[in-house]
Amino acid sequence: MAIKWHFSINLEGKIYFKETVMEKTVVIGCGLIGQSWAVIFAQSGLDVVMYDSSSEAIEKVIVSIEKKISDLVEFDLISREDAPKILERVKVERRLEDALKDASYIQECGPEQLDLKQKITQSIDSIADRGVPIGSSTSGISASKYSVNISGRDRCLVVHPINPPHLIPAVEIVPSAWTDEAIVKKVVKLMEKCNRETILLSKEIDGFIVNRLQGALLEEAFRLIGSRVVSAGDLDKAISHGLGMRWSFMGPMKTIHLNAPGGVSQYVERYGEMYRKFGIGGYESVNWKDVAEEMLNDELCEQVPIKGISEAQNQRDRKLMALLRHKKSNGV
Amino acid sequence: MAIKWHFSINLEGKIYFKETVMEKTVVIGCGLIGQSWAVIFAQSGLDVVMYDSSSEAIEKVIVSIEKKISDLVEFDLISREDAPKILERVKVERRLEDALKDASYIQECGPEQLDLKQKITQSIDSIADRGVPIGSSTSGISASKYSVNISGRDRCLVVHPINPPHLIPAVEIVPSAWTDEAIVKKVVKLMEKCNRETILLSKEIDGFIVNRLQGALLEEAFRLIGSRVVSAGDLDKAISHGLGMRWSFMGPMKTIHLNAPGGVSQYVERYGEMYRKFGIGGYESVNWKDVAEEMLNDELCEQVPIKGISEAQNQRDRKLMALLRHKKSNGV
Repeated sequence: MAIKWHFSINLEGKIYFKETVMEKTVVIGCGLIGQSWAVIFAQSGLDVVMYDSSSEAIEKVIVSIEKKISDLVEFDLISREDAPKILERVKVERRLEDALKDASYIQECGPEQLDLKQKITQSIDSIADRGVPIGSSTSGISASKYSVNISGRDRCLVVHPINPPHLIPAVEIVPSAWTDEAIVKKVVKLMEKCNRETILLSKEIDGFIVNRLQGALLEEAFRLIGSRVVSAGDLDKAISHGLGMRWSFMGPMKTIHLNAPGGVSQYVERYGEMYRKFGIGGYESVNWKDVAEEMLNDELCEQVPIKGISEAQNQRDRKLMALLRHKKSNGV
Repeated sequence: MAIKWHFSINLEGKIYFKETVMEKTVVIGCGLIGQSWAVIFAQSGLDVVMYDSSSEAIEKVIVSIEKKISDLVEFDLISREDAPKILERVKVERRLEDALKDASYIQECGPEQLDLKQKITQSIDSIADRGVPIGSSTSGISASKYSVNISGRDRCLVVHPINPPHLIPAVEIVPSAWTDEAIVKKVVKLMEKCNRETILLSKEIDGFIVNRLQGALLEEAFRLIGSRVVSAGDLDKAISHGLGMRWSFMGPMKTIHLNAPGGVSQYVERYGEMYRKFGIGGYESVNWKDVAEEMLNDELCEQVPIKGISEAQNQRDRKLMALLRHKKSNGV
């Protein structure tokens, strides 16, 4: 971590010195996910150093990142003036030791194999300064599995992006039972600084949140298509011209909160039994009413109080119209 | 159904007469759903007559529709010049007989109660010309239930929109076992003419497609929130800043087809076992591999052949960037 001194002038005209921590992020692995992380960090003003055990991958990576940045410029997501500055922040190193020097955060993007992930994390942990978080991009291997025998396991956790990471803001943060809470806080703060939308899990669970939700929807989709009730194409329309439109700016829980004048508890009262009859949850079906009353109601009413639901519905419809206009004018 | 005669001049300069069928749609029920249907039909150049058993509802309906149209003008979804013409196409009638006269399509938007739906459909069927389809907006009552004792039951079917219907293009078309195939075709054609995205079910199933998919996702969401793995707010982010972004322009089946270089079959080969281990489908879990091989592969490869997947991924990413720009510039 490099420290720089800046001077500023305050409101009374006095000059004072300010310590600024320059964060150096390190990305281990120069594949597609690693490239995306580099764009995310550099776009947020952070220095990035990339490393890969394959020198071929290292050689190609800057060109690939340049392409991603120029795509973002084309879509006004990066200004033409900022583009070269962003690219300049990304450097490569050919030795792991050099890459990890003075790191303030490390994002590991190695292969999805337990033995390799253990080995890579072990190497990183033996070199990087203590207290520097090591986040893994893994979508399937919990930190408790690959970090169990690592001495610095308290700084290991999963920081799982959604593909393609530089275009999808959601990031899942999944600490193991032994991950230090201060490390988790540091990572959440860094991700927020990088305009990521953080999904913090209180404990490890297979598939985390995103893939479990996708899996639940896919399970039902395979069932419906498999029993020849509907074609894949028509089922896709139910999402891309239906539910997915609302979901592109509003999650499913807030969606149902707005779908009854009395909020989520009333929604469950009105429609819970209908959903239960679909038999989707099988024998382990959850009691929606209990969850709504014990947990959902308070949290969602804090977001949108019952008396604000009608206005929130108006806002939702205005966002839908803006989305429709966008889809129309972009031929989406 | 009114028939008008137009004359046109063909390429050889000859004048000829052409019969044009002027479609008159009838909306039964002046609530929110009925109002939306009126906007949809009128926006597509069709005449609309609205009816409600409550004279109070009839009196208010034109003002409500005018408001919807002016919102659409604000978002460039209707041009300022077209707005008054669209509104003019909507009329109200105070007697069911007058409303149904010369109808070419009837959309019933009555209350979600079996006995009432039976009664309303019975009345419509006894008055409307034979062969005119009667679609119901019901989200929960299958046509086989409310139409079983109706003499014209072969023209009854469910035509279920997603709320709010004039802003969400998806429409589920659910015939009963006795619905005439010609009626189904007529309705699909009309809905396509009205820029609806039709989801045709081969047989009745509780919740149809949209609510079953939503239910499957909600079941897992309630389970995750209920076991305190994640907050409702963070779970919502997994959709609104994650999966929902892709899903706003691409359904879940096409999404997974693009997520493996070898298409959907390879996706299932690679990730099917992972999803199965989440235990979401319970004891009735579907065999994804069989469905992929027997059904999905052919249909999806027709949409995107394996050799076109890489280019389709590029297109997807360009749509994601356009969506990001849209979300950014509209503060969504």
